[in-house]
Amino acid sequence: MWGGRFEGGPSAIMREINASIPFDKALWRQDIAASKAHVAMLGAMGIVADGDAIAIRDGLDAVAAEYAASGVPEDWDLEDIHMTTESRLAALIGPVAGRLHTARSRNDQVATDFRLWVRDAIDEADAGLEALQKALVTRAGEHAGSIMPGFTHLQTAQPVTLGHHLMAYYEMTARDRSRFADARVRLNKCPLGAAALAGTGFPIDREMTAQALGFAAPTANSLDSVSDRDFALDYLMAASQCALHLSRLAEEFIIWASQPFGFVALPDALSTGSSIMPQKKNPDAAELVRGHAGRITGCLVALMMTMKGLPLAYSKDMQDDKPPVFEAAGLLALSIAAMTGMIADTAFRTERMRAAAELGYATATDLADWLVREGDIPFREAHHITGAAVKLAESRGVPLDQLPLADLKSIDSRIDARVFSALSVEASVAARKSHGGTAPDQVRERVAEARAVLGLE
Amino acid sequence: MWGGRFEGGPSAIMREINASIPFDKALWRQDIAASKAHVAMLGAMGIVADGDAIAIRDGLDAVAAEYAASGVPEDWDLEDIHMTTESRLAALIGPVAGRLHTARSRNDQVATDFRLWVRDAIDEADAGLEALQKALVTRAGEHAGSIMPGFTHLQTAQPVTLGHHLMAYYEMTARDRSRFADARVRLNKCPLGAAALAGTGFPIDREMTAQALGFAAPTANSLDSVSDRDFALDYLMAASQCALHLSRLAEEFIIWASQPFGFVALPDALSTGSSIMPQKKNPDAAELVRGHAGRITGCLVALMMTMKGLPLAYSKDMQDDKPPVFEAAGLLALSIAAMTGMIADTAFRTERMRAAAELGYATATDLADWLVREGDIPFREAHHITGAAVKLAESRGVPLDQLPLADLKSIDSRIDARVFSALSVEASVAARKSHGGTAPDQVRERVAEARAVLGLE
Amino acid sequence: MWGGRFEGGPSAIMREINASIPFDKALWRQDIAASKAHVAMLGAMGIVADGDAIAIRDGLDAVAAEYAASGVPEDWDLEDIHMTTESRLAALIGPVAGRLHTARSRNDQVATDFRLWVRDAIDEADAGLEALQKALVTRAGEHAGSIMPGFTHLQTAQPVTLGHHLMAYYEMTARDRSRFADARVRLNKCPLGAAALAGTGFPIDREMTAQALGFAAPTANSLDSVSDRDFALDYLMAASQCALHLSRLAEEFIIWASQPFGFVALPDALSTGSSIMPQKKNPDAAELVRGHAGRITGCLVALMMTMKGLPLAYSKDMQDDKPPVFEAAGLLALSIAAMTGMIADTAFRTERMRAAAELGYATATDLADWLVREGDIPFREAHHITGAAVKLAESRGVPLDQLPLADLKSIDSRIDARVFSALSVEASVAARKSHGGTAPDQVRERVAEARAVLGLE
Amino acid sequence: MWGGRFEGGPSAIMREINASIPFDKALWRQDIAASKAHVAMLGAMGIVADGDAIAIRDGLDAVAAEYAASGVPEDWDLEDIHMTTESRLAALIGPVAGRLHTARSRNDQVATDFRLWVRDAIDEADAGLEALQKALVTRAGEHAGSIMPGFTHLQTAQPVTLGHHLMAYYEMTARDRSRFADARVRLNKCPLGAAALAGTGFPIDREMTAQALGFAAPTANSLDSVSDRDFALDYLMAASQCALHLSRLAEEFIIWASQPFGFVALPDALSTGSSIMPQKKNPDAAELVRGHAGRITGCLVALMMTMKGLPLAYSKDMQDDKPPVFEAAGLLALSIAAMTGMIADTAFRTERMRAAAELGYATATDLADWLVREGDIPFREAHHITGAAVKLAESRGVPLDQLPLADLKSIDSRIDARVFSALSVEASVAARKSHGGTAPDQVRERVAEARAVLGLE
Repeated sequence: MWGGRFEGGPSAIMREINASIPFDKALWRQDIAASKAHVAMLGAMGIVADGDAIAIRDGLDAVAAEYAASGVPEDWDLEDIHMTTESRLAALIGPVAGRLHTARSRNDQVATDFRLWVRDAIDEADAGLEALQKALVTRAGEHAGSIMPGFTHLQTAQPVTLGHHLMAYYEMTARDRSRFADARVRLNKCPLGAAALAGTGFPIDREMTAQALGFAAPTANSLDSVSDRDFALDYLMAASQCALHLSRLAEEFIIWASQPFGFVALPDALSTGSSIMPQKKNPDAAELVRGHAGRITGCLVALMMTMKGLPLAYSKDMQDDKPPVFEAAGLLALSIAAMTGMIADTAFRTERMRAAAELGYATATDLADWLVREGDIPFREAHHITGAAVKLAESRGVPLDQLPLADLKSIDSRIDARVFSALSVEASVAARKSHGGTAPDQVRERVAEARAVLGLE
Repeated sequence: MWGGRFEGGPSAIMREINASIPFDKALWRQDIAASKAHVAMLGAMGIVADGDAIAIRDGLDAVAAEYAASGVPEDWDLEDIHMTTESRLAALIGPVAGRLHTARSRNDQVATDFRLWVRDAIDEADAGLEALQKALVTRAGEHAGSIMPGFTHLQTAQPVTLGHHLMAYYEMTARDRSRFADARVRLNKCPLGAAALAGTGFPIDREMTAQALGFAAPTANSLDSVSDRDFALDYLMAASQCALHLSRLAEEFIIWASQPFGFVALPDALSTGSSIMPQKKNPDAAELVRGHAGRITGCLVALMMTMKGLPLAYSKDMQDDKPPVFEAAGLLALSIAAMTGMIADTAFRTERMRAAAELGYATATDLADWLVREGDIPFREAHHITGAAVKLAESRGVPLDQLPLADLKSIDSRIDARVFSALSVEASVAARKSHGGTAPDQVRERVAEARAVLGLE
Repeated sequence: MWGGRFEGGPSAIMREINASIPFDKALWRQDIAASKAHVAMLGAMGIVADGDAIAIRDGLDAVAAEYAASGVPEDWDLEDIHMTTESRLAALIGPVAGRLHTARSRNDQVATDFRLWVRDAIDEADAGLEALQKALVTRAGEHAGSIMPGFTHLQTAQPVTLGHHLMAYYEMTARDRSRFADARVRLNKCPLGAAALAGTGFPIDREMTAQALGFAAPTANSLDSVSDRDFALDYLMAASQCALHLSRLAEEFIIWASQPFGFVALPDALSTGSSIMPQKKNPDAAELVRGHAGRITGCLVALMMTMKGLPLAYSKDMQDDKPPVFEAAGLLALSIAAMTGMIADTAFRTERMRAAAELGYATATDLADWLVREGDIPFREAHHITGAAVKLAESRGVPLDQLPLADLKSIDSRIDARVFSALSVEASVAARKSHGGTAPDQVRERVAEARAVLGLE
Repeated sequence: MWGGRFEGGPSAIMREINASIPFDKALWRQDIAASKAHVAMLGAMGIVADGDAIAIRDGLDAVAAEYAASGVPEDWDLEDIHMTTESRLAALIGPVAGRLHTARSRNDQVATDFRLWVRDAIDEADAGLEALQKALVTRAGEHAGSIMPGFTHLQTAQPVTLGHHLMAYYEMTARDRSRFADARVRLNKCPLGAAALAGTGFPIDREMTAQALGFAAPTANSLDSVSDRDFALDYLMAASQCALHLSRLAEEFIIWASQPFGFVALPDALSTGSSIMPQKKNPDAAELVRGHAGRITGCLVALMMTMKGLPLAYSKDMQDDKPPVFEAAGLLALSIAAMTGMIADTAFRTERMRAAAELGYATATDLADWLVREGDIPFREAHHITGAAVKLAESRGVPLDQLPLADLKSIDSRIDARVFSALSVEASVAARKSHGGTAPDQVRERVAEARAVLGLE
C-alpha cells in the first residue's frame, strides 16, 4: 500500500507495534459512514464518475454488512481499519475501489472517524448523566426533609437534609453535562478534505461532507486538522472531572455503608460477598467507581504526555490517542450506570442519620447565630460564648439543648429560654433558608427547578 | 479564633503544615473585595447597623491600603489571609470587626476569593492569547506565500506555506480561548452565603453580593458551593491544553533553529549563550516553554488527585488547591508571552525553507494526483506508479521534476510533458486550494478572517 | 557571560522566564562545596597554580559566609546560583576567579550540585521515616492485644489488634526506606568533569573530586552525565510512594476521628477548630497529609513529562527539574513529621474499637474454620453453613455467639457446644497465629524484631 | 459463592463492572502454581488428607491443561480467575475441591498470583534490556571513532563520537536494569497465608509455600500483605523511567532521520510508507516508542491515584491494579524490542554526521581551552576572546580553522600557529580523554568494560 518503494517488509516486531487494527476496528461504523459521505461528494463534484461512486457506496454497504454479521477481521498486515476496509472493498468491487482514496488521506480519514466516535461517546455520557440526575432528584425529593449530619473534615458540622446532600451531586453532574456540551461544540467541525496535511487540488466540497456527517462546518486549516487531538483531550478532561465527582459520591456511600455509620443499606444487586467471610456485604460497585477515577485520569495523562512537544503535522505517536479514549469511555459509562443504580436503589436509614445529627453539637452555630440575632453580639464574641457552652455540655456528657438554662446563663447572662427553640436539629435546618441553603423548602424549590429542567412530570 | 475549646495550642509542625498565609496572601485583593461586598449587603439587609457596616468598609479599605503599601504580613498563627485581614481589621476598628463574619464562614469566603482570582487568571490568559494570535496572523500574512516543507512524521511530505503553518497555531489558540471562555461561564457563580456548608439563617441577599462581585448569579446548593473546585480544575485543564499547544510550537522552533535545519534565526532577546562554548545561541525560551508544559500538567494532576474521593463538604485537603493554580498561572503567562515574542521577532530564513521543500520528493503526491486527474487512473494505481518514479529519481539522485520525460514514460506511458507544470513546489501549493488548504489564496482568506475577528484594521 | 557574541540583551520576559536564581539559590551550599572540590583538584593537578587555587578557595569561603549571614542575592541578570557565586567571587578576588571555571561547565556543575542536594533530601526522608517507625512500634507494642475490627471494603471483616494494624504501616515505611536507599546508591556517582557534554582536554582527576564530595565514583559517560535526571525521578518516585502510604494512614485517622467511629481522640496540637462552628475539632494535619499525596505525585508527573522525548545532551527544559523536587521534599518532610506526631500522641479509644469489633459478625470465619477443623467439612460447605447462621442471627438481631445452640444445630447438626469458645473476638485474634497473623503473640514478635532493627533497647 | 446470604443476584451493570475475568485470566498460570503450592502445604501439614491433596493437585493440572489447550473461559458470574478455576476444579473432582480454599482467601491469593506475574514481567524487561545493551555496545564499538556533532539545546556544541553517544544509552539502560532488580528484591516476599487480612488459625507453613514459589520469604504482616500494591507501583515506576529513556532515543532517531539532518537511514523493516505520498519512509516504530512513554506513564498515574487514600485492608478499588500493569508491560516489551531492532539495523550516515560536526563552530571551546593551556589566560577571558573569533568567522562565513592567523592575532596577539592543530574535529574529540569523555580511546575502554559485564567474549 506504500507505493512499492520499500525493499523489505516489516519485521515481526514492527507488524505488532504498528498495527492499530486490534483497537481501531472499534471505529468501523464511523469509517464506513465517512467513506460514504466522501464518495458521494466525489460523485457529486464529478471527481469520480457517478457509476463508480455508486459501486463504491454499495460496496461499502456490503462491507458494513459483513462487519455487522461477523465482526471486523484482524489482519496486522492491513495495519488499520482504513486499509482493512479498503482492501475488502477492492476484493468485492475490483480496482474501482482505488478511486475512493482520491482527495483524502488516512490522516484526515482517521481524524474524521475518531471525531465521530468521540461525539457519540459524549452523547452517551450525557444520556447517562441525565439518568443519574433523574435518580438524584427523585431521591432528593423523597428526602427533602430527612435530617442527617452535615460534615466538614468528616466531622459533624451542622445538620443538613439528605435531599440537600443529594442535590449537591445534581449540581456537579450539571457542570459535567455542560462540560461535555462545550466539548461537543468545539469538536463538531469536519477535518475530512484536509488530506495528508495540505489540503487537496481536487475540487472537493467540504461543506457537503461536513453536513452529511452532522458536523457544523469544515475545519479551517488543513495542517491543524490532521495534527489536532484537542477533541480527544476535551473528552478525557470532561470524563476525568466527572469521574472525580463520582469518586466522591462513591467514597460517601462506602463510608455510609460501614457498620459504625450505618447510614445506608446498599442494594444487593450492587454489592458482593466474600469467598471466606460469609457475613460480608461489600460495596464493590462504589469501590470500583472510586478506583476508576484513577484509571480515567491515567488515560488523560497518557494522551497529554503523548501529545507534548509533537511537531506538526501528523506523527505516529498520535495513534496512541485511541486506547486511552476507548478505555476511559468504557469505564465512565459503567461508573455512571453503577452510581445511578446505587442512588435509585439504596435504602437510606434515615433514623440512624437523624440520630447521628443529634450528636456532635451540630447546632452550636445556631446558638452563636441566636446570640448575634437576639443579643446583638458581634459574631466573633458569640462564637466564643458558644465554645464555652459546648465545652460545658461536653464535660456533662449532654447535648447542647439539654444544658439547664441556668448553666447557659452562667456563661452569658443574655441567654434566655427562647434559645432552646433554636437548638433542635429541625429548627436548625429549617432556619437555613438562604438561597441554596439546606432548609427543606429550599431543597424542594431546587428539586422542582431541576425536575423542570429534566422534563420530569 | 476557634472558640476557646482547645486545651493546647498547635505544635510547631502543625503551625507549619497548616498555615496557608505564605501562599494565599496572593488572594488579598479578592478577600477585601468580597468582604466589602458582604458587609455592604449585611448593612443593606439590616443584619448589621449602617454605622457598623461603614466602619467595617472603611477599615477594610485601610487594611487594603496597608497591604498595597507594605505587603501582607505572614503570621502563621493567623493561618490564612482571612484571619490575617480580620485580625488587622479588629486592631484598627475594634470589636465591631467581629460583625463582619456574620452569615458567612471561611469555607464560602475562600471559595469566593479563589473564584475571583481564577476569573482574573482566565482573563489574563485570554489577553495573552489574543496578543499571540495577533503576532501569528501578522507573520502569517507576511508569509502567506513563503514555501517550506510540510512534514508528517518529521519527514518531508508536501510543500506548504509558512503562513499556513503559522495559522495552524491560530486555530489551536482559538480553541484555547474558547476553552477559557467556557471555564469562565461555568465559574461565574457566587458561593458567598453558603456559609460553612448549610447556608445561613440570617436574611441575606445573595443576588446582591453576587452582582457586586461581577458574578452572573449565586450558586444553587450550599454543600456544593464549599466542596466544589471544578472552576480550578477547569482552569488547569485549559491551561494544560494551551501549554501543550505551546510545547508543540516550541519544539518546532527548537528543531528549526538547529544548524541542519536553519529555518529560523531566533531573536537574541529570547536566546542565551553558553558559559563554556562561545559560539552557542540557545533557544532557551522555547525550551522553557516546552518544559513548562510538564509542570503545568503536573499542577493539574496534583489537584485532580487531591480531589479524588473527598467526601462532602469542605475538607482541608482542598487547601492544596491554590499552589498548583498559582504556579500554573505564572508559568502559563510567561510561556504565552515568550512565544508571542518569538513569533513576532524571529527571522524566518525563507530561502532555506524553500530549498528544503525542493528536497525529499515533496511533490510526489502531485504526480499521483495528476495521473488521476489527467489519466483517469484510480488513485491507488496512480500511487503505485508514482512510487516507481520516486524510486527511479532517487537512484539517479535527482528531484522528480528533473527526471527526463522518457524515463517517466517508461514507467507509465500515459505520462506526458504537461506533467512537469504540476511538479514544482509553487504549483503544488497553489493547487491545494480546497477550503483550509495551503494555497496562498486560501491562507490569505483565513488571515483576513482572523484579522477581522481580532479587530485588526 | 556568553562571550560577547550577542547583539542585544535579553528581553524582560526572557530575563524572567530564564532566571533560575529565585529557586536554585537553594543549592548554594552544594555549589560552594562542589566548586571547592573542583578547585582543589585543579590545584593538585597543576591546572591552576597553587596560589590561585588557594585564593579561589578562600574566596569561596568568603562568599559562603556572606550567603549564610545575609542570604543569596537574587539578580536575574546573573541567571542562576552558579553565575551569582562566580560573579561575587570575581568581585572579591579579581580576575583569578575566572580560572575556577576551567575544565567544567554549568552543565556538569548543576548536575553535581543537584545530586548533592537530592542526596541530602534522601537522608532527611530516611531520618524522618525512622522516627515515624519508632513511633509506630512503640504504639504497636502498647496495643499488641487491643482488639479492633479489621476491615476489608471498609466493612467489618475479622477482629484484629490495633498493634497489628499499626505494624502494617511499619512494613510500608520499611519499603519506603529501602526505596530511598536504592535511589541513593544509584545517585551516588559524580558527574563533575563531564564539562559541557564531551568531557575535557585538561588532565583532571575525577576520582579526586568524586571522593571529596562523598560520591562512590565518577560517572562513566559525559553525555549521560549532563543529560540524566534519573536521580531526581528516583527521589520523586520514592517520595510519591511514601506519600501514598501516608495518605492511607491519614484517611484512616480521618475516618476513625469521625463521630460515628470515634476510635481516636486526635491530639489538639495537630487539630484545628472552626471560624464558625465552635464545637469542631478537625483532623487538619491528616487531611493535609492526604492532600499532599496529590501534590507530590503532581511533582513526579511534572518532571516525567518534562523529560519525555528530550534529545541529548542538556536541554534548558531540564531547568524545570528543581521546583518539583524542592516542593515535594518540603511537603514530604512535613507529612512525615505530622504523621509521626499523630501516631505518637493520638489517644486510641480502645473500648470503642473493641465494641465495634463485636458488631458485624466479625467472627463468622471462625465458625467456618471450626466446622472445617472439627467437622472435617470442606471449606466451601462450611462457608455456606456459616452464611445461613449469620442470616439467622441477623434476623434475630443478635451476635453470632448469642444464637442458642439449638438454632445452630438446626442449621447443621454437626455443630456442638464447643463452638462457642471459637466465637469471641479474643478467641478469634488469638487463633490467628500463622506467621504475620494478628495474634497478639505474633504482633509482639514482630514488634520485638522491629525494635531490634531500629536499635530500640 | 458468598454463602447464600444475599437475597438477589447482581444487576447486569454489577456483573459487568465487577467481573475481572476478562483481564485477570492472564494470571492463570500463576493461579494454578500458587494453588498447587498451597495444597501441597495443606497436605504436608495434615490440614487436608493426603489423598485429597493429591486429587486437588491432579485436578489443577487437568484444569491447566484445558486452559493451555482452549484458553480460559470468560463467565462473568464466576467473577475472576480464582473462582473460574475453583469452579472448574469442582466440576472435575467434586466437593473435595472445596478443601483447597482452606486457610486462604482470594485476597492473599490474588496478591500472590499478581506478584508472580509482575516478577515474570521484571525478568522479561531485564532480558529485553540486556539485548538492547548488546546492540548498543556492538554499534558503539563500530563507531567509537565516528565523529558527529554533540548537541546541547539541539544546537551544535562540541564534536563527539557516535559511539560515545550510543554509550550514553548504555548507561541509562544500566540504571533501568538496576531499578528493575531493586523492584524484584522488594517484591519477592510471599503473601500467601495472610488469608483475608488477619492470618489464619490453621497450622500452615508459610515458609514452605514461599519456597515452592521461588520467594525469598513470607511477608511479615497479614494486613499489609493484602493491602499492598507497592510491587506493582515499583514495576510501573521502573517501566515509566525506562520508557522515558527510550522516548529520548526515539526522538533522536526521528530527528536524525529527517531530510535536513539525514544522519540515519532507518531499516525498512521498522518504517512505514504513506497511503498518499509515495516517497515517504516514516520512522513509525520510533514514534510509537516515543508515544508509548505517555501511555506507560499514564498507567503509573492511574494506579497511584487509585491507591491514594485507601484504608486498610483490601478494597475493591485495588482490582484496578492489573489493567495498567498488563498494558504497560505489553507496551514496554514492544518498545524495547523495537529500539533494539532500530539500534542493530540502522545505517548510520557517518559522512553526513561528520560534515555537520564541521559546521556550527563546534571547536570554539577548543580554542578557549588552548588559550588557557598555552596562554595561561583565565578561562573567563579566554571564553571572551573566543567569542570574538567566532563572531569574526561567522561574518566571514568560514569555519574557525579557516580564519587566517593574522585575523586571530588581531583579536588576541597571544594566539600563534600552533592553535590550528587544536581546531579540527578530530583533535577536539581526541583531546577529551578525561574519564568518561568522548575521546575514541575512552569510548573503547567503556565499550570493553560493558562487553565484559554483558558476557560478550
